[in-house]
Amino acid sequence: MASLLAALRHNPLLWLLVFVPAVFAVQSVAHDAHTMLFVLSVLAIVPLAALLSHATESVAAKTGDTVGGLLNASLGNLTELVIALTALRSGQYMLVKASIAGAIVTNTLFMLGASFLLGGLKYHTQEFNRVSARLQACLLFLATIALLIPSAVGQADSGASAVFTQKLSLGLSGLLIVSYALGMIFSLKTHRELFAATAHAGEEETPWPVGVALVMLAVVTVVVALVSEVFVESVQKAAEAFGMTPAFVGFIVVALVGGAAEMASAFAGARKNRLDLSVGIALGSASQIALFVAPVLVLLSYVMGPTPMDLRLWPGAVVMMLFATLTASLVTNGGRSAWFVGVLVLMVYLIFAMTLYLLPPAAA
Amino acid sequence: MASLLAALRHNPLLWLLVFVPAVFAVQSVAHDAHTMLFVLSVLAIVPLAALLSHATESVAAKTGDTVGGLLNASLGNLTELVIALTALRSGQYMLVKASIAGAIVTNTLFMLGASFLLGGLKYHTQEFNRVSARLQACLLFLATIALLIPSAVGQADSGASAVFTQKLSLGLSGLLIVSYALGMIFSLKTHRELFAATAHAGEEETPWPVGVALVMLAVVTVVVALVSEVFVESVQKAAEAFGMTPAFVGFIVVALVGGAAEMASAFAGARKNRLDLSVGIALGSASQIALFVAPVLVLLSYVMGPTPMDLRLWPGAVVMMLFATLTASLVTNGGRSAWFVGVLVLMVYLIFAMTLYLLPPAAA
Amino acid sequence: MASLLAALRHNPLLWLLVFVPAVFAVQSVAHDAHTMLFVLSVLAIVPLAALLSHATESVAAKTGDTVGGLLNASLGNLTELVIALTALRSGQYMLVKASIAGAIVTNTLFMLGASFLLGGLKYHTQEFNRVSARLQACLLFLATIALLIPSAVGQADSGASAVFTQKLSLGLSGLLIVSYALGMIFSLKTHRELFAATAHAGEEETPWPVGVALVMLAVVTVVVALVSEVFVESVQKAAEAFGMTPAFVGFIVVALVGGAAEMASAFAGARKNRLDLSVGIALGSASQIALFVAPVLVLLSYVMGPTPMDLRLWPGAVVMMLFATLTASLVTNGGRSAWFVGVLVLMVYLIFAMTLYLLPPAAA
Repeated sequence: MASLLAALRHNPLLWLLVFVPAVFAVQSVAHDAHTMLFVLSVLAIVPLAALLSHATESVAAKTGDTVGGLLNASLGNLTELVIALTALRSGQYMLVKASIAGAIVTNTLFMLGASFLLGGLKYHTQEFNRVSARLQACLLFLATIALLIPSAVGQADSGASAVFTQKLSLGLSGLLIVSYALGMIFSLKTHRELFAATAHAGEEETPWPVGVALVMLAVVTVVVALVSEVFVESVQKAAEAFGMTPAFVGFIVVALVGGAAEMASAFAGARKNRLDLSVGIALGSASQIALFVAPVLVLLSYVMGPTPMDLRLWPGAVVMMLFATLTASLVTNGGRSAWFVGVLVLMVYLIFAMTLYLLPPAAA
Repeated sequence: MASLLAALRHNPLLWLLVFVPAVFAVQSVAHDAHTMLFVLSVLAIVPLAALLSHATESVAAKTGDTVGGLLNASLGNLTELVIALTALRSGQYMLVKASIAGAIVTNTLFMLGASFLLGGLKYHTQEFNRVSARLQACLLFLATIALLIPSAVGQADSGASAVFTQKLSLGLSGLLIVSYALGMIFSLKTHRELFAATAHAGEEETPWPVGVALVMLAVVTVVVALVSEVFVESVQKAAEAFGMTPAFVGFIVVALVGGAAEMASAFAGARKNRLDLSVGIALGSASQIALFVAPVLVLLSYVMGPTPMDLRLWPGAVVMMLFATLTASLVTNGGRSAWFVGVLVLMVYLIFAMTLYLLPPAAA
Repeated sequence: MASLLAALRHNPLLWLLVFVPAVFAVQSVAHDAHTMLFVLSVLAIVPLAALLSHATESVAAKTGDTVGGLLNASLGNLTELVIALTALRSGQYMLVKASIAGAIVTNTLFMLGASFLLGGLKYHTQEFNRVSARLQACLLFLATIALLIPSAVGQADSGASAVFTQKLSLGLSGLLIVSYALGMIFSLKTHRELFAATAHAGEEETPWPVGVALVMLAVVTVVVALVSEVFVESVQKAAEAFGMTPAFVGFIVVALVGGAAEMASAFAGARKNRLDLSVGIALGSASQIALFVAPVLVLLSYVMGPTPMDLRLWPGAVVMMLFATLTASLVTNGGRSAWFVGVLVLMVYLIFAMTLYLLPPAAA
């Protein structure tokens, strides 16, 4: 409890925790207040994500570099995973897919771009480890290819049936998880010296004792799952009320909410001229969702979903993922940044967000 | 007048000015001689563009680096803008769009490739400032994304209506102009040291006195507008006579005519081993058209056109813009050039030109 | 004969030559044993390709660097050319096109990726000449654009007729062959110092006397042609028996069979920490097929085929070629490699192979 209070002082985001009981209170008295429930659940998920991420890092800090890295790598996007699982269980596959693609695009463009911009407003130019950035961009590129091939080949060749897409999605999920596992062996074991800077992401905060951390991890995951249920239930109705398309909600809103905690870390890193950290969090988180969360959701859909889910995205999402990845490759290629690079990356994100916001609901 | 004569001696292109009165003479006696009017107006626009560009640079030279850079940046493609405006006013939106996309592709591929080739035939290898080239390539990439998203998302999702495309085009135009303005602040103010070489593009020619330059700017712009009217009226009929498709005319002919003056500067730079200048003119001009001329035309279409114009291009144009941008990124990435790099870039241009030339008119 | 025996000792692949008589024996007694004939002809082509490649290198070694380089460059993919010509003569254009696209993708991804992986398992990191790799990647990119434009523009614009595609394919073939010829002048004449490492590819094996080499070249080419006939006849039926789609057979099986000899050299280079060699063979072979073999086949189809062949590929093949080229650009850009880079490239290949394997036959 004392450490929770210390955390509250250290991280003002955590004051938002008051919205967690508020969500449940409002839900029990006004089950149909979708818009309010949506807003409250968004506000509640943000601090919960921060707690989850701190708990994961605390456990990781105690278990040595390799196991810790592994933990961080597999639980780092736990919030996104829990939200997506809730949507999966209720059969809202469009929301699941939009939130996966959106999280990749948002991390690659918004988190990276805002880090460049915030860092660049303080420092004239900033340098970062381009070997590591390049590898992350390559991983992301691989995942993009895996996610777009079922759509591209399936669409181009009209004979491609649902059975084909389903089998292909299973196979691709296997390839992605294997790639992700090998990538961890590479970055945590055989070539860890290349990734030195990004390994100590959460170092500056005091870690919790491992017992506290494990309990928090379990408790907060359950709370996130409960709040996610409210969120997933209310999101569609609330979106209509706000005049947002489902594509915009899944792609932009869910992705920003789920990634808020990581964004806070990435932006703080950029302001401290530790751009390695920011680039590592942004691209690392994006490739983790693409190579780990997405295929795990496909596999889990066989157990938990009403029907199996495939990896096939709508064409617009594929185009956006592809350009997000290419943009990240282009701007991280030189290993240097200035404020305008951030503006460029954010502009690409704004183009996508604007397109999704204006898109007529039927088309999404 | 003396300075005009000096300019004539200095720049043999200007002898083509005799075709300016010829255009108006022929038009008054043989209004239907479309092919001849087309050829004469093409020959007349080339020297006028050179005069416009010299007038702009003369004013810019007198007003200090920042204002001068701003002037160059906004009036550097005045010829293209005036031609496009004439086509806009007569409602020929296909020609406007083809000439925008064509100017981007022609500057990126033909001007850049021919500069590499001409420089490479004289020098074994040439170096250029790759930081600046990379930034220009990124700006161009941003603009390409903005121009292809309405086409890509609009096409992929059949529900996308004309209203959606219209609203999106307006929004994207705003984003592009803001990006362009921020890019100028970046390259002229906060990080001008990175762009040192390209800032002094027109230095070697003696600038005109500022009074002469301003008068020339006004007079020549009006003359260009008058000749453009003849050009736009005759281009379709003449194209048929030459067996050219409208796509080929807009994409290739208009772009080469409008950019002739800049090409002369870029090629001269390459022959003097000042490849920084050539790359700066080629990519800078392309990104200026994409980020400034194109959105300005969309906005002006609300005031001057019969109906509002959107940013939606035909799919083939989008594919070509995308590959032009990717080619420019690939070849400028290393900061070195040799003659064969120029050949490669020109070959991509030839592939596009050949495709457009052979394309049956109905398909364009 | 003695040199053949020496070669047998040196290169265990050559023991597979026993399958050459086996193919003809089985064909004369059991003409309908398609599956067996397919397997036997595959096993027979592999050592024949190795002999062809050694014969070419032996002649090249005797004729000086320039002529030798020219010979290597034009006969280096003789096996692929002979197989494709056999398929062309029997009018199987889908197989010809699939084998061209497949050879490009297989060389770019499988040969390059496996070289990185095999080298990386032995050495912590490896360096290679990135100037040369970048040029090869650019050449490949040019070829990809040439091969995808007829498909992209033709498909997007429904008015594009067969006549248009035919004329365009002829024109593009001309451009590609000219680019290839200029590329040879560049790498063998004007800028040969940039390509020093890759020029001496086959140096370590003792070359045959030039007389032996020329006879072998002629004899083995004829034998390859005869075996190819059996292969092309049996491949479709055998594919059905194995449950493979024609796309998979053309893209993956034919490409692996035809490139086996080069793969052996590339992998040996990687294991000896001469990654320059491996990258040169992989990308050089891919760009040779794209810029030389493919257009030569189009031209020859006017003489040898039942009807002229165009360059238009099915959309899935274009997407794969494009991503193979982009992947090669991304990973060779830095000039360094480690085992995981190989894994990434191989994963892209596996994604493609899996998609083609699962694709329903009607769609390919």
